[in-house]
Amino acid sequence: MAQKPSIPKGTRDFSPEEMSRRNYIFDTIKSVFHLYGYQQIETPAMENLSTLMGKYGEEGDKLLFKILNSGDFLKDVADEDYASKNLVKLTNKMCEKGLRYDLTVPFARFVVQYRGELQMPFKRFQIQPVWRADRPQKGRYREFYQCDADVVGSDSLWNEIELLSMIDTVFGKLKVRVAIKVNNRKILTGIAEIIGAADKIVDITVAIDKIDKIGIDNVNEELRVKGLSEEAITKLQPLLDMKGTNEEKIATLSELLKESETGLKGVEELRTVIEGINDLGHNCEIDVDVSLARGLNYYTGTIIEVKALDVEIGSITGGGRYDNLTGVFGAPGLSGVGISFGADRIYDVLNQLNLYPDSVNSSVKVIFVNFGEKEAAASARMVKLLREEGVSAELYPDAAKMKKQMSYANSQNIRFVAIIGESELEQGTINLKDMNAGTQETLTPGALVEKLKNA
Amino acid sequence: MAQKPSIPKGTRDFSPEEMSRRNYIFDTIKSVFHLYGYQQIETPAMENLSTLMGKYGEEGDKLLFKILNSGDFLKDVADEDYASKNLVKLTNKMCEKGLRYDLTVPFARFVVQYRGELQMPFKRFQIQPVWRADRPQKGRYREFYQCDADVVGSDSLWNEIELLSMIDTVFGKLKVRVAIKVNNRKILTGIAEIIGAADKIVDITVAIDKIDKIGIDNVNEELRVKGLSEEAITKLQPLLDMKGTNEEKIATLSELLKESETGLKGVEELRTVIEGINDLGHNCEIDVDVSLARGLNYYTGTIIEVKALDVEIGSITGGGRYDNLTGVFGAPGLSGVGISFGADRIYDVLNQLNLYPDSVNSSVKVIFVNFGEKEAAASARMVKLLREEGVSAELYPDAAKMKKQMSYANSQNIRFVAIIGESELEQGTINLKDMNAGTQETLTPGALVEKLKNA
Repeated sequence: MAQKPSIPKGTRDFSPEEMSRRNYIFDTIKSVFHLYGYQQIETPAMENLSTLMGKYGEEGDKLLFKILNSGDFLKDVADEDYASKNLVKLTNKMCEKGLRYDLTVPFARFVVQYRGELQMPFKRFQIQPVWRADRPQKGRYREFYQCDADVVGSDSLWNEIELLSMIDTVFGKLKVRVAIKVNNRKILTGIAEIIGAADKIVDITVAIDKIDKIGIDNVNEELRVKGLSEEAITKLQPLLDMKGTNEEKIATLSELLKESETGLKGVEELRTVIEGINDLGHNCEIDVDVSLARGLNYYTGTIIEVKALDVEIGSITGGGRYDNLTGVFGAPGLSGVGISFGADRIYDVLNQLNLYPDSVNSSVKVIFVNFGEKEAAASARMVKLLREEGVSAELYPDAAKMKKQMSYANSQNIRFVAIIGESELEQGTINLKDMNAGTQETLTPGALVEKLKNA
Repeated sequence: MAQKPSIPKGTRDFSPEEMSRRNYIFDTIKSVFHLYGYQQIETPAMENLSTLMGKYGEEGDKLLFKILNSGDFLKDVADEDYASKNLVKLTNKMCEKGLRYDLTVPFARFVVQYRGELQMPFKRFQIQPVWRADRPQKGRYREFYQCDADVVGSDSLWNEIELLSMIDTVFGKLKVRVAIKVNNRKILTGIAEIIGAADKIVDITVAIDKIDKIGIDNVNEELRVKGLSEEAITKLQPLLDMKGTNEEKIATLSELLKESETGLKGVEELRTVIEGINDLGHNCEIDVDVSLARGLNYYTGTIIEVKALDVEIGSITGGGRYDNLTGVFGAPGLSGVGISFGADRIYDVLNQLNLYPDSVNSSVKVIFVNFGEKEAAASARMVKLLREEGVSAELYPDAAKMKKQMSYANSQNIRFVAIIGESELEQGTINLKDMNAGTQETLTPGALVEKLKNA
């Protein structure tokens, strides 16, 4: 006998129940993207490796899944390279394509490739899987979905405000309590400047980004190791320790960063964004947080991160403003801002809190029991009528024992079970059981359609 | 400057316009799958090569995209195999995973892997891309979507009748005129038996499957080359030349195949299926066609194929009954029947006939022109209100020249343009232009919401 089949580690199958739940999340996010005027694109799973390599750092290059050229994959490998067994050189010659690692680089490639045809500002969303050859572990997969929304070609801060409003709307609809943290990369630059360590901005932001995880003492220790002076560290403390409302924090920053032009520009941007979203109104908590850094080398203005309040799971959405996404593909000067919903983590949050509406957990609305040829034929006609009225319905295909058919209905979580047996066939009626209410009634075809359309 | 980026040959990017059209097709098919009680699953893009290899014939093995093992991909390659440069041996050692080639093998793997947990009959649908290293050409891609629906664990012919009804419903909703051709593999076996060439069934079905393309004379010539006797070919002619209604064809087959037990069983199955779908009612043409073969080695009962009547494009949907899909994974005895909608060809058909409803070609319902800080703030509040009422809306993010903003609205095919300028701001009103009708009116916020909700 063949071995029991399996799937590659770090990948997942999704059962009907899991798909209903995931679709509920994706459909909710998608509907909000549409409400906000974002339009969907899709890009191929495979990109040229020349598009992907060098975009995610040296570590990222190793985590790309590479696709062996079809046909004679050795034909471009020089004999000396083959003899050397140099893995990088061999890969470069044997593989032209790789699986996409995120949606950001393919989007940048897309914008540059079709720049002449795209009307700016271009507001796109994209919901597709990405692949990473990471070591699989709990909550980390080799294939997972990203849900990105970005605007390019507009540097207006209205875009940031709208993105915050969109995040608020998505989590409102999903009924997940979250806090949105907001910062600005220019404030981080300003902080580095005023503590006299502008050249150490990367070290500073990497360190303070960990403040939630490791605490302020360990952050300070890391900064010392990185060569920051005690004076600089002392100057940094009031910034890390800011308390109060967003307005108070903005006022404090304004004061502390008054010697840094860039820093003040960041504070003003932050103020505009916070006042803008407050003016529009929002349901979830929005916090100014100067320890927020997220991929510093990438963002140039606003930085956004979302955390679930009721589940310990890290960031479930993040994003920000970037001023040179497309530069690497030869089209500099396009500013963009975007966010990425972490679909798999949001899925984990909803599962833990069981936040799915009831409708997510059932399949069809009604199943007709199969009592044999004539009864099944009458049932099939009724099923067809219901479907024409938009009611999902099915006929059990086999005239199996009642118990087996009921067990199927039960396992599928089907609310209504309809019976056309001998007597119903004679009378032209349907016996309908409501499995939730535990009731049953005998209905005419017309009454059945009305009842199920409104149930 | 960097080279203009591109994507791998045979793959495609989909623009917002293309995505709207594709989503219209996928959403229509998906809604029908749900109406009929099929439930969605997803499987990973990457499968173990041990799952995929040997399932699609020798040619298929070559067309699988294989993924280079991450890390030291040479570690399992023996020195002698490395020295030999044997491509197949090297591939086997360097690659453990491949991209899925269709949705059928992953489904079979899924059914076997979770057999203990699945309630039979299991009605699943799956809409995901597949990858084939085919030579790219017009209408043939290296990445394309398949939309499959299958039932396993029931051999009732009600499943076939329902699938025919489902096809009829899908193309009815898409407004594509089609003919569904139906045959039964057992009839083909019967034909081979009664013409005394049971051992040549593969050659016979391969040849007669081409009758539409090459004509009857060439089919006969091919059969001669394959070693069929003149007597057998003569006996075959009335079968290939059957005329009349489905009922007449079935009667003729009954008579012609009366010496073949298998053949008669096929005729009875075909009769049940045709009578069943006629009893339910259908809109599209359904034709009994004994020349229909489709992947003979795979199907064991009913065979189904759909052709568009108004576009020359070949088969746009196909499927049938298979009795041993899961046997190759060590779980024999599960009968299944399914169909696969050819999404990319259906997309081509709808494009050629321009069958999309108007709603498919527009993005948001209304855009607010941006006249600067105060006006934009009032517009943003109005936009938020509209979204809360389910109306998709956007604010142009920059206070750009009117002409530029209107050109954006126009390029996005947005029907309504709303203006809150100085005077509207003062009066608390909105000026709304209907770009389709060429009219404009001044509305209160409440009236605007009502108008756009119902537009």
